[in-house]
Amino acid sequence: MAASGFFFFLTKMKKKVAIQGIKGSFHHQVAQSCFGENVVLEECVSFREVITSVLDNTSQKAVMALENSIAGSILPNYTLIDNSNLQITGEFFLNIHMNLMGLPGQTIADIKEVHSHPIALLQCANFFNQYPQIKLVESSDTAITAKRIQEQQLKGIGALAGPAAAEIYNLAILADGVHTVKSNKTRFVILKAKDLAYDKENVNKASLRFELDDTPGSLATVLNVLNNCKLNLTKIQSIPVIETPFKYSFFVDVIFDKYKHFEKAKKLMEIMTTHFKVLGEYQQG
Amino acid sequence: MAASGFFFFLTKMKKKVAIQGIKGSFHHQVAQSCFGENVVLEECVSFREVITSVLDNTSQKAVMALENSIAGSILPNYTLIDNSNLQITGEFFLNIHMNLMGLPGQTIADIKEVHSHPIALLQCANFFNQYPQIKLVESSDTAITAKRIQEQQLKGIGALAGPAAAEIYNLAILADGVHTVKSNKTRFVILKAKDLAYDKENVNKASLRFELDDTPGSLATVLNVLNNCKLNLTKIQSIPVIETPFKYSFFVDVIFDKYKHFEKAKKLMEIMTTHFKVLGEYQQG
Repeated sequence: MAASGFFFFLTKMKKKVAIQGIKGSFHHQVAQSCFGENVVLEECVSFREVITSVLDNTSQKAVMALENSIAGSILPNYTLIDNSNLQITGEFFLNIHMNLMGLPGQTIADIKEVHSHPIALLQCANFFNQYPQIKLVESSDTAITAKRIQEQQLKGIGALAGPAAAEIYNLAILADGVHTVKSNKTRFVILKAKDLAYDKENVNKASLRFELDDTPGSLATVLNVLNNCKLNLTKIQSIPVIETPFKYSFFVDVIFDKYKHFEKAKKLMEIMTTHFKVLGEYQQG
Repeated sequence: MAASGFFFFLTKMKKKVAIQGIKGSFHHQVAQSCFGENVVLEECVSFREVITSVLDNTSQKAVMALENSIAGSILPNYTLIDNSNLQITGEFFLNIHMNLMGLPGQTIADIKEVHSHPIALLQCANFFNQYPQIKLVESSDTAITAKRIQEQQLKGIGALAGPAAAEIYNLAILADGVHTVKSNKTRFVILKAKDLAYDKENVNKASLRFELDDTPGSLATVLNVLNNCKLNLTKIQSIPVIETPFKYSFFVDVIFDKYKHFEKAKKLMEIMTTHFKVLGEYQQG
């Protein structure tokens, strides 16, 4: 490989964004919104593989769903971020729009099986109540069945995915907007390796994790301190620490006007809580 | 129908417990733990149907999963309880133990497809990473495939369910304890119609729902009040109110020693929050 080719190769490597799923998935849609139409994807079969891809430097960044208004927080992803020591460097809210799609010429009456991600199937459960003859089958990603239907020219099979999947894999939309809750937003975060510097100029949000003993008022005390430091909460989620009864861990998101306020709060939190950790500092999405 | 038969019928109806799923499911296991081995079940295909069964008086009680340590809070179930005005009258924590089962004589090498509830499939994802040839298929309940395998003598199909399912449907356990996180507890609640009186003597826990505007420190203020009233938090979960940006709803569980402390807190919460609601008062599980 010539030197210029090598550098081109390096640059290309550096720009890869790891997602769970393939082209046409909601993760792809978010990657395009954040990094441009022609973003180079590293398509992974699991969230665990997404993390590995950043840790071993195959990808420079990752896009990961963290919570939605139907299925709630995706706790395993919080744990993956926490354990891997990746940092959250941004967030993005996507309006989830689900279409039922199949080969051109097919109608809903032809469809015997619909394959999609389990959360997507949950999000459209009400729609499928009208079609008890359709079998719902779990797949690893929303777009993968769309691709398979096109490649293998599968009749009788439908995919449940976003509008982009129908376009990329040349499928017909058999039913548009089949998700139950119409204003269903999913929150995605952008992840990078911990030692990678990034622009903190516009930072006004942070994701924190800490543990508290089950002593009365311990959480109220922490929230008072955050409030005194002029930090405002946008999310709080308690999780029992499995190994230790009566101990709780908290995932908290805060927004702030001035970074120095957040810095003061961090110093206090380090003293007041155990296992305090900043999962990321970034600009509000 | 003779009068005695009619009363027997009535009594039997009254004792029905609605669950999502069928005999051998985890919901069945919890119903047995709470109401005895021979509990009469109303087997429902969805959580929505479980609620309807109590509302139309087909069942007197319901058992419903609310959260687990893998998938987090089951937010749609919170919403169902909230919207239906059923009350939580008890809770139960179940250790989830997953077995892979099939027809006697089969081995894992024979299995081409495993069917189970999407959350159950998630809970055992690591185990199935070793068997990429096995296709994971979503079903409405953990036990339903176990039943189907037995009834139709299905070879090549495995079910992922609790130990009770293997026993009830005479299946062989092909792999024992295939869940990833070994101390995976699921929290279930018992539900009754709102107007139904029940024994409140041992009440020391309550589930609350309220909304707060996104004004700085509003949550801290509420938690201070709960603390001043000697209530202790065991769970907190914020959910953005979809229709109203910057408004949050909270699901909070509190425990207390004296009911009068809780009564005082209720009066204060009614003034300090909007849409304040007690989802249930019960004895800690």
